[in-house]
Amino acid sequence: MPESTAPPVKTVTACIVVIGNEILSGRTKDANIQYLASELGALGVQVRECRVIPDIEGTIVATINEVRRKFDYVFTTGGIGPTHDDITADSIAKAFGVGISEHPEAIARMTRHYGDVALFTPARRRMARVPHGGVLVDNPVSVAPGFQMENVFTFAGIPSIAQGMFQAMKHRLVGGDPVVSRTVRTNLPEGIIAEPLGALQKRYEDLDIGSYPGFRNGKISVSLVLRGTNDARLASASAELMVTLKKMNGEAEEFVQ
Amino acid sequence: MPESTAPPVKTVTACIVVIGNEILSGRTKDANIQYLASELGALGVQVRECRVIPDIEGTIVATINEVRRKFDYVFTTGGIGPTHDDITADSIAKAFGVGISEHPEAIARMTRHYGDVALFTPARRRMARVPHGGVLVDNPVSVAPGFQMENVFTFAGIPSIAQGMFQAMKHRLVGGDPVVSRTVRTNLPEGIIAEPLGALQKRYEDLDIGSYPGFRNGKISVSLVLRGTNDARLASASAELMVTLKKMNGEAEEFVQ
Repeated sequence: MPESTAPPVKTVTACIVVIGNEILSGRTKDANIQYLASELGALGVQVRECRVIPDIEGTIVATINEVRRKFDYVFTTGGIGPTHDDITADSIAKAFGVGISEHPEAIARMTRHYGDVALFTPARRRMARVPHGGVLVDNPVSVAPGFQMENVFTFAGIPSIAQGMFQAMKHRLVGGDPVVSRTVRTNLPEGIIAEPLGALQKRYEDLDIGSYPGFRNGKISVSLVLRGTNDARLASASAELMVTLKKMNGEAEEFVQ
Repeated sequence: MPESTAPPVKTVTACIVVIGNEILSGRTKDANIQYLASELGALGVQVRECRVIPDIEGTIVATINEVRRKFDYVFTTGGIGPTHDDITADSIAKAFGVGISEHPEAIARMTRHYGDVALFTPARRRMARVPHGGVLVDNPVSVAPGFQMENVFTFAGIPSIAQGMFQAMKHRLVGGDPVVSRTVRTNLPEGIIAEPLGALQKRYEDLDIGSYPGFRNGKISVSLVLRGTNDARLASASAELMVTLKKMNGEAEEFVQ
């Protein structure tokens, strides 16, 4: 338990909304959730939910309006390209009840980028459309920007571009207390260590202790992940766990992240 | 447009709920969504939404109760192991308003598997607990079963086990008209093909035409994916698209899946 004198933990939450039929059909494997979740965690922003939804206006509007009220930050990926199936920007404008039109700064950047007016096609101009009140998010990869509407950030779906956009805007985020973790890896199976592990979790209610079974070189390998905002508490719980596992004649290896 | 004499398309929908803090923290990359989405698609079950949620009872209960009413099928992965953080089975019992206890057949299977009573620990016995009314889903990998509650199927999170469970129960699913797809790959950028592509989508409202930009050997490569239930319509739209791209001096290669 945290000591009574400890300051309250400041928690900042986020939701990631992946927009795209190609993920739902299984054609494409999402590559943005893990990247954004890790990066946000390092900034003290905890991803609490992710949704993968289709390119359907009603679904996008309803989802955005639900999650932007429930979480401190929302990040969307996908659906801001130049083709007919790219409806994210229009849907977000609708969610916020505002209009959408070409953003002068976006037009300026894209005009410079494409140079020849013939290359800056009407389809590409669509990518300069931003919901009214939106603030641009730079695109260091292919120029056409993302945008921020209040606590909602809209990125492209292509991983390299989504990552570039995140890096370009992350200074705007105000994180809470960063969550740090320690991982203890053991060869003892979950069914054997579950009881002392549960007891440890009860003694350290301020930490989140997860058990993730897997295989390593064909042998059982369980990662016990301790997460929390107080490093001293983590170190103490991790040390106790190491002793317990060794007493049970198990391997115990600690990784500090 | 579909001909007026065509039978109505039978659509069967699904939602995948990934339960696990380790995905939300970015520690682990989800590997179940793509597998399940592809397999379900082949059976005529269309995944319409995915959610990734934490190991928190209230969130699991609320999510399951929302999506089991909204979609024909729900598939959950994660949280049915032997440790304290495995709370999926209890949460699903709560969502359905039923009790939970050891399932005799699950106990019988696991007793056979562990042989020695000392190995069949209380923690492992937890994995034999099934919400009342639940039907077992076989686990061909590590014995401890998943279960079905009405239209909700609960699988383990480890990909090999989730896949084994899916294969073991997929005959229980009743799919709709299978969605088939054709992919046309081109080297023309989206900003150039967007207009004729949008026009094609308008002429083929019964198909879902998606445009997925990417890179191949460092060069632009756009996959145009046509999806629908009527193969003749797909073939016709795809042929039109090939002609259009070639007229624009682009490469056009068709893949039939």
